[in-house]
Amino acid sequence: MKELLFGAAYYDEYMPYDRLDKDIEMMKKAGINTVRIAESTWSTCEPQEGVFDFSHVERVMDVMEKAGINVIIGTPTYAVPAWMVKAHPDVIATTKKGAGIYGARQIMDITNPVYLFYAERVIRKLMELSAHRKCVIGFQVDNETKYYGTAGKNVQLAFVKYLREKFHDDLDAMNHEFGLDYWSNRVDAWEDFPDVRGTINGSLGAEFEKFQRTLVDKFLSWQAGIVSEYKREDQFITNNLDFEWRGYSYGVQPDVNHLHASQALTVAATDIYHPSQDDLTGTEIAFGGDMIRSLKHDNYLVMETQAQGFPCWTPYKGQLRLCAYSHLASGANSVMYWHWHSIHNSFETYWKGLLSHDFAENDTYREACIIGKEFQEKGSHLVNLKKKNDVAVMVSNEALTALNWFGIQATSGDNGEIRYNDVVRWIYDALYRMNVECDFVWPESENLSEYKAIFVPALYAAPDSTLERLNQYVKDGGTLVVTFKSGFANENVKVHADAQPHILKDALGISYNQFTFPREVKLSGKLYGTDLADGEGARVFMELLKPEGAEVLAGYDHYNWKDYAAITRNKYGEGTAYYLGCMTDDNTLYKVIKGALGSAGVELSGYSYPVIVREGTNDFGKTVRYFLNYSAEEQEVTYKYDDGEDVISGEEIKSGEELKISAWDMRIVEA
Amino acid sequence: MKELLFGAAYYDEYMPYDRLDKDIEMMKKAGINTVRIAESTWSTCEPQEGVFDFSHVERVMDVMEKAGINVIIGTPTYAVPAWMVKAHPDVIATTKKGAGIYGARQIMDITNPVYLFYAERVIRKLMELSAHRKCVIGFQVDNETKYYGTAGKNVQLAFVKYLREKFHDDLDAMNHEFGLDYWSNRVDAWEDFPDVRGTINGSLGAEFEKFQRTLVDKFLSWQAGIVSEYKREDQFITNNLDFEWRGYSYGVQPDVNHLHASQALTVAATDIYHPSQDDLTGTEIAFGGDMIRSLKHDNYLVMETQAQGFPCWTPYKGQLRLCAYSHLASGANSVMYWHWHSIHNSFETYWKGLLSHDFAENDTYREACIIGKEFQEKGSHLVNLKKKNDVAVMVSNEALTALNWFGIQATSGDNGEIRYNDVVRWIYDALYRMNVECDFVWPESENLSEYKAIFVPALYAAPDSTLERLNQYVKDGGTLVVTFKSGFANENVKVHADAQPHILKDALGISYNQFTFPREVKLSGKLYGTDLADGEGARVFMELLKPEGAEVLAGYDHYNWKDYAAITRNKYGEGTAYYLGCMTDDNTLYKVIKGALGSAGVELSGYSYPVIVREGTNDFGKTVRYFLNYSAEEQEVTYKYDDGEDVISGEEIKSGEELKISAWDMRIVEA
Amino acid sequence: MKELLFGAAYYDEYMPYDRLDKDIEMMKKAGINTVRIAESTWSTCEPQEGVFDFSHVERVMDVMEKAGINVIIGTPTYAVPAWMVKAHPDVIATTKKGAGIYGARQIMDITNPVYLFYAERVIRKLMELSAHRKCVIGFQVDNETKYYGTAGKNVQLAFVKYLREKFHDDLDAMNHEFGLDYWSNRVDAWEDFPDVRGTINGSLGAEFEKFQRTLVDKFLSWQAGIVSEYKREDQFITNNLDFEWRGYSYGVQPDVNHLHASQALTVAATDIYHPSQDDLTGTEIAFGGDMIRSLKHDNYLVMETQAQGFPCWTPYKGQLRLCAYSHLASGANSVMYWHWHSIHNSFETYWKGLLSHDFAENDTYREACIIGKEFQEKGSHLVNLKKKNDVAVMVSNEALTALNWFGIQATSGDNGEIRYNDVVRWIYDALYRMNVECDFVWPESENLSEYKAIFVPALYAAPDSTLERLNQYVKDGGTLVVTFKSGFANENVKVHADAQPHILKDALGISYNQFTFPREVKLSGKLYGTDLADGEGARVFMELLKPEGAEVLAGYDHYNWKDYAAITRNKYGEGTAYYLGCMTDDNTLYKVIKGALGSAGVELSGYSYPVIVREGTNDFGKTVRYFLNYSAEEQEVTYKYDDGEDVISGEEIKSGEELKISAWDMRIVEA
Repeated sequence: MKELLFGAAYYDEYMPYDRLDKDIEMMKKAGINTVRIAESTWSTCEPQEGVFDFSHVERVMDVMEKAGINVIIGTPTYAVPAWMVKAHPDVIATTKKGAGIYGARQIMDITNPVYLFYAERVIRKLMELSAHRKCVIGFQVDNETKYYGTAGKNVQLAFVKYLREKFHDDLDAMNHEFGLDYWSNRVDAWEDFPDVRGTINGSLGAEFEKFQRTLVDKFLSWQAGIVSEYKREDQFITNNLDFEWRGYSYGVQPDVNHLHASQALTVAATDIYHPSQDDLTGTEIAFGGDMIRSLKHDNYLVMETQAQGFPCWTPYKGQLRLCAYSHLASGANSVMYWHWHSIHNSFETYWKGLLSHDFAENDTYREACIIGKEFQEKGSHLVNLKKKNDVAVMVSNEALTALNWFGIQATSGDNGEIRYNDVVRWIYDALYRMNVECDFVWPESENLSEYKAIFVPALYAAPDSTLERLNQYVKDGGTLVVTFKSGFANENVKVHADAQPHILKDALGISYNQFTFPREVKLSGKLYGTDLADGEGARVFMELLKPEGAEVLAGYDHYNWKDYAAITRNKYGEGTAYYLGCMTDDNTLYKVIKGALGSAGVELSGYSYPVIVREGTNDFGKTVRYFLNYSAEEQEVTYKYDDGEDVISGEEIKSGEELKISAWDMRIVEA
Repeated sequence: MKELLFGAAYYDEYMPYDRLDKDIEMMKKAGINTVRIAESTWSTCEPQEGVFDFSHVERVMDVMEKAGINVIIGTPTYAVPAWMVKAHPDVIATTKKGAGIYGARQIMDITNPVYLFYAERVIRKLMELSAHRKCVIGFQVDNETKYYGTAGKNVQLAFVKYLREKFHDDLDAMNHEFGLDYWSNRVDAWEDFPDVRGTINGSLGAEFEKFQRTLVDKFLSWQAGIVSEYKREDQFITNNLDFEWRGYSYGVQPDVNHLHASQALTVAATDIYHPSQDDLTGTEIAFGGDMIRSLKHDNYLVMETQAQGFPCWTPYKGQLRLCAYSHLASGANSVMYWHWHSIHNSFETYWKGLLSHDFAENDTYREACIIGKEFQEKGSHLVNLKKKNDVAVMVSNEALTALNWFGIQATSGDNGEIRYNDVVRWIYDALYRMNVECDFVWPESENLSEYKAIFVPALYAAPDSTLERLNQYVKDGGTLVVTFKSGFANENVKVHADAQPHILKDALGISYNQFTFPREVKLSGKLYGTDLADGEGARVFMELLKPEGAEVLAGYDHYNWKDYAAITRNKYGEGTAYYLGCMTDDNTLYKVIKGALGSAGVELSGYSYPVIVREGTNDFGKTVRYFLNYSAEEQEVTYKYDDGEDVISGEEIKSGEELKISAWDMRIVEA
Repeated sequence: MKELLFGAAYYDEYMPYDRLDKDIEMMKKAGINTVRIAESTWSTCEPQEGVFDFSHVERVMDVMEKAGINVIIGTPTYAVPAWMVKAHPDVIATTKKGAGIYGARQIMDITNPVYLFYAERVIRKLMELSAHRKCVIGFQVDNETKYYGTAGKNVQLAFVKYLREKFHDDLDAMNHEFGLDYWSNRVDAWEDFPDVRGTINGSLGAEFEKFQRTLVDKFLSWQAGIVSEYKREDQFITNNLDFEWRGYSYGVQPDVNHLHASQALTVAATDIYHPSQDDLTGTEIAFGGDMIRSLKHDNYLVMETQAQGFPCWTPYKGQLRLCAYSHLASGANSVMYWHWHSIHNSFETYWKGLLSHDFAENDTYREACIIGKEFQEKGSHLVNLKKKNDVAVMVSNEALTALNWFGIQATSGDNGEIRYNDVVRWIYDALYRMNVECDFVWPESENLSEYKAIFVPALYAAPDSTLERLNQYVKDGGTLVVTFKSGFANENVKVHADAQPHILKDALGISYNQFTFPREVKLSGKLYGTDLADGEGARVFMELLKPEGAEVLAGYDHYNWKDYAAITRNKYGEGTAYYLGCMTDDNTLYKVIKGALGSAGVELSGYSYPVIVREGTNDFGKTVRYFLNYSAEEQEVTYKYDDGEDVISGEEIKSGEELKISAWDMRIVEA
């Protein structure tokens, strides 16, 4: 990327009156240099079957080009027109809930040939008129693509064919791997295959979801292939990958395998939404950025993030700017808002853009003007920030899906049930608050040896090869931190029939075959020489560990479980492996992480939340360090690095100097 | 009305054994002079298609006529017989949930011609035998009519035709007004119109609900037309209008536009159910009564209210009588219980009547005997109470529906979501507790100038003409109190593209374009010279107001929002306009109301809850004042009016005298 | 039964690898002498229609027989193979939710002839190869059979025929009994009968559920008939009856009439699951055991109970053994775990057996080894324990169903709604904690006179004959304790039209016709000479009782309800009848029970929870007394009976000696 992209999604189609010239004027004032257009506007581009009207697209490109603003073209395929569904109702995905009904976006069967036929035609028409345009810098194929639960007859038929291939037509092998003898679920003729939507077998169900995720890979690859026929070499292809949604971007996306799906893209992009006001911590910005950057080990685009967003997110003074720089601090090369203007009708009326419904300047827009100006002036120091992290976190769609089937608490638990991403975020958030920057790796990643320490949260279902690679990683000198619920089942979600955790127990020096839920269970033992403070303890889930060579860092303070270990450390080959047999309070986790990073030779900066420090190397080969203050109070920290320069103010920063950071503000030092 | 009606719904059909003579005897003892019969008994009146058996109706009329008890005939159309549905399953409404199933009441498609054919026939048969009867004083067409979610193909086809007419066949106009470009929802051929049940477009969805409400108007008008062919001039036609149900009668009815529906009726009637025991406040009796009285600016009938009701409502001593007089105090000319006897089978077995299942005298019945005796003796002083109120509250079905689509908190809010009626009741209940009697007005009301002060809660969606009329009202000297979320969208639920609140901002002297949810936000500033007490603050929703001429009565006590106004007052023309930019605690609201009524020249009586004072003029031209004690403690208040007479006891009441009111009791003074 | 059965369900079919010999070895070590096999494995036994493969069954029988381990054969019919549903989709039950989908167990229509045809064939095949085997001691027909909501057209047609018979073709009688006039629900031609799934009429709905329960009786009887054609005389036929499931075995099973269903069985068996760890009280073991023992007034089998169970149930040290003896203490002749090994795939992966997924010894298995050894050594003293109880509790499926329709709190209550089994357990649990052993009786039981005291919780719907029998029981000298909500409706759930409680009021000497929900209502009056302590009071529901001869034991301490009685006692004939007009705190209930047992001449042992004492007579004619300690603390109690011997340790126990019982441990004394 030559420059930072600063911009917004722009919908000329949705305007209550012609605003284009005024909008351009306001964009220029705000330093906006990029807009994304056209995604989700199929019914405007093709109001009737075969009748095309790209006038909105063309007029926007014309004016943007003239104004020197880049355009990203989104293919309009993630929301289907009414005419298509009226003529071909099967275009709507049949899901577990049955046949769907027209109305919302993202409700079609992305394998339906009618849909694909019309989608290809409108994409080609759009490419013909946009690909050659100077202002067009790239393409977004579809939008936040997922499989939308598609599970109609055609999809299930394809799944059976997929299984025949996976099991080389061997039904016994399938019945055995999935355990279909249970509750009389065997399939002894392929043509007997039952409607998979009703299955209660987690192995079969998880396999179906894995198959459904491959439909997303295929769909994006197919669209990228079409776009590639038209695009110039300097134009990129991307898709805005998003996350598990819990009212904001929370964790690993259950419905897309990001690593696989991103193969079809020339650059990875993402949508990140996060709590704001008093709840702004920057965690989701870092989490999402670290993950998307790790897909291609390269800079990425933030294609969407909130401007005003939901009413509860209306940003406090400084927060919009703090967030913009937080994205850059993770390696983003763009900050694009969803969206320019608030929409006057329909579902997202209260998901507000930079401008409110009145299109007037407001506090949020005015803060964007400051960001835009700074990006223009200082962007060359900030773009293409490269990172070299010592720490990685391993995540897995397969583990997530399997734990969705089984829960970390099965039925009848007293505590709230938690899921895979809760464990991932428990680990990640602690690292984040301790200012340990990290990459993500996946079960199939071959680059484990690049890292000094790898954290493995709840890797419930994984092939032996991954577990063996992790053992080898320790043997070769790596530091591994594994949590409960790892190595429990194989890639077909069949629980292992040897002692737990399967294979990993060699590196970890422990085993167990019983577990329970903690009820008022504290942790006992001296953890690194310190007595455990009150209130620390086991949470949610606990395994009853028996050390087999490992050192016990903590046990369970409970009359019935006192003989079992809770947290252990084991020397294995040249490396060290830690195991957390239970979820714990944050303080205990901090201590484990600190110890593990000590083992790994990773030095802690000493800074801690609410001051977040993130760094990388810029195009000038210099180190750029962000000091981000996620609090309403001014923070003062000692600048511990080489003498440098404040990128925004230009003032000189001496090593050892006290850096003051205002509330919801940041400092950037290049050294 | 010549006399107060006191009575109950009576179902001879449901009796476990022949009770008629014994019931008449007990009714006479209780002073009951009216029964309502026949509604909901279609399967008894027409046990097989075309086979009629009105023997229950006839024998009840015979005996009542002999006993001098009035009869109101209800048409039996709100519950359909099994034989009809077995032969014509389409009679059951298809709704958002799909095809329905026989069983409950109020499940049919009120536009279905099969249903209408049979309904007309049974109505005519019933009219033929009842209309000429001396005892029959009026007719209730159907019962608590609503549209029951009817949304089958026929209804949707009619809706498309309605839209073609509304938009003069101009699809572009419709697409523009409803914002259908969004998420590719455009309709560019009428025959492509999608199943509206799936829409995520609040403009289209709200329009469909408005259309569905017109079906109720048409249905009642059609029934009233049939009945009119038979009825005598002295006989009335009514329907028992009810309210949003939250376990009791809570607020504006979402599924019926009372103002429109009541056009077909010669007198308005209502069903009012309310909390009891410690939760009895009288608010719902006043709210419902004020609303139904305002429909025709005339006295109304209470067609149903609770006797024993739910088990949790079994009334304390005095409460049945207190409630009966509370209805009269709002202008009711009747108190009719649902129902005479408790039912021995089916859905409402635990919704108990005056008599329990054993038909014996009980405490509730005995209290009814007292009421009946007093009505007989003193009713001539109490019937036809006329009111002339200075204050009105504007309510709107369209605002309610729109806010059902959008919520007052959109997604992701921390506080509990509230809805339109919560805002209406927040305002109304404060007025009630301050003893400010009021009428209701609607967006189309032309009589605004009759009022000194008008309160406008959350008028989210309204045509410009209404907003302009409100501005003119202020300009002409009125006092207007508007809350947050008013004037936000037009009548098609399209958010206005100028500064908020649209049009009203002229009278209010403020504008805003940002808003959020308060989190620990107090109010700042001196409100009428008094420091704000602890605990007062913004609740649920807050707009960030910029005064443009208005005086700031309160601001937000929060570091990030401190520059914005929360409550304002503005002189405009001859009048004054107040704006509440947020929901507040009750004390703050009381202060705003007090100030506004001061501006309006409306004097407060000084009485306050739990003593409720309500008044009007009787047929003798005298003022009748009710002093109602909604508490378990005796209350003593000073009688501040002209010398008068206690209507019940006949004792003389001197101005300035202390009036004692026993627990759950009341005094009525005529002066 | 000649010996105690100790064992587990065993699924050779589910094994990840061949384990049979190793499992036999571990079973023998644990003293296991019985396994149950084959239930739920239809798809393994008949992998394709008409293709049978019983190799798993045969090889297990072979090896068990050789090892001297008994086998119980379960017919595999409670989960259907995929091939059957693919060919005959109607096999899946249509329920209130519509057509079903293949996947789970217990989803078929147990009246479907296709299902019955295939079921009969596979049962006969299985019988042919297993019935003659020496190791096979009995048969379990189907598994936890219920009716699975089956309500398709065929079932509804059969229901109409059932109604024609019940009402002798008299529609008027049906309309009257069910109150179908209400809401126009009359049926005046049998062919008009509507889809009963939509009914809102509790009388009709409850009758349908009663009819559905008869389908279970018929189905089990049909299977038992087939099995009887093959079985030897020494072999038993049973079915594992289970309970209302609230995450564990809670109360009366709503979907099966145990008394009727068990007619087809030669011995009653049951599945009992219960809370564990700190929540282990033994209540469910006693409740379930008392109920199943009462079905045939004989010993019963515990066919399933938990080993490790859910993760939250992983037993503390001692608890597995304590529970095993608790079953025997109620009269069980077996303790069988579900199941031997934890399953590696599918729905119950986390419902763990004696062995974990690794098949290794673990703490739970090791405790089973102790139990097995003790059973082998001392079982002859413990098997066939006979009881003669003075106290009975009357339970009723019909009352349960009716109260499911109506709730004990109808709509709009403030307190949490409770249901029938809450009242049953409120009474039973108090008796249990006071160490009052009891039997269960049913409305049709003829043996009431065997008991000195009978408790009747919430017998909402019952025929007059039952109520008359209860009155006669008192007249003849019995002590009766009846709670609120008894005698309210007849067997057709038609509320009685005379004063409540119908018929019973004669024995009880009270009546009422009003009731409400208590809100801060204490109880007043001196109950047995003792002032009521703070905190005691009415809960959930209260009837406003008028004494008509009865003595008032407690009234309501509330200004409006103070004139009514809450708890009463009445002499009637030779006996005494108590009435609880409200639910109360436990202490008040204990006092009522103590008083009632005093009236009945039932002596209290003086022991109380957490020490539970249960007794019976063994095959040697001696009294065996269990002293069970349900707590984490050692308990010491005085042994008050004849000198005897500790069955486990053999040590002598003197009358008056202090018995020490360790935490989660027990003592058994034979005297």
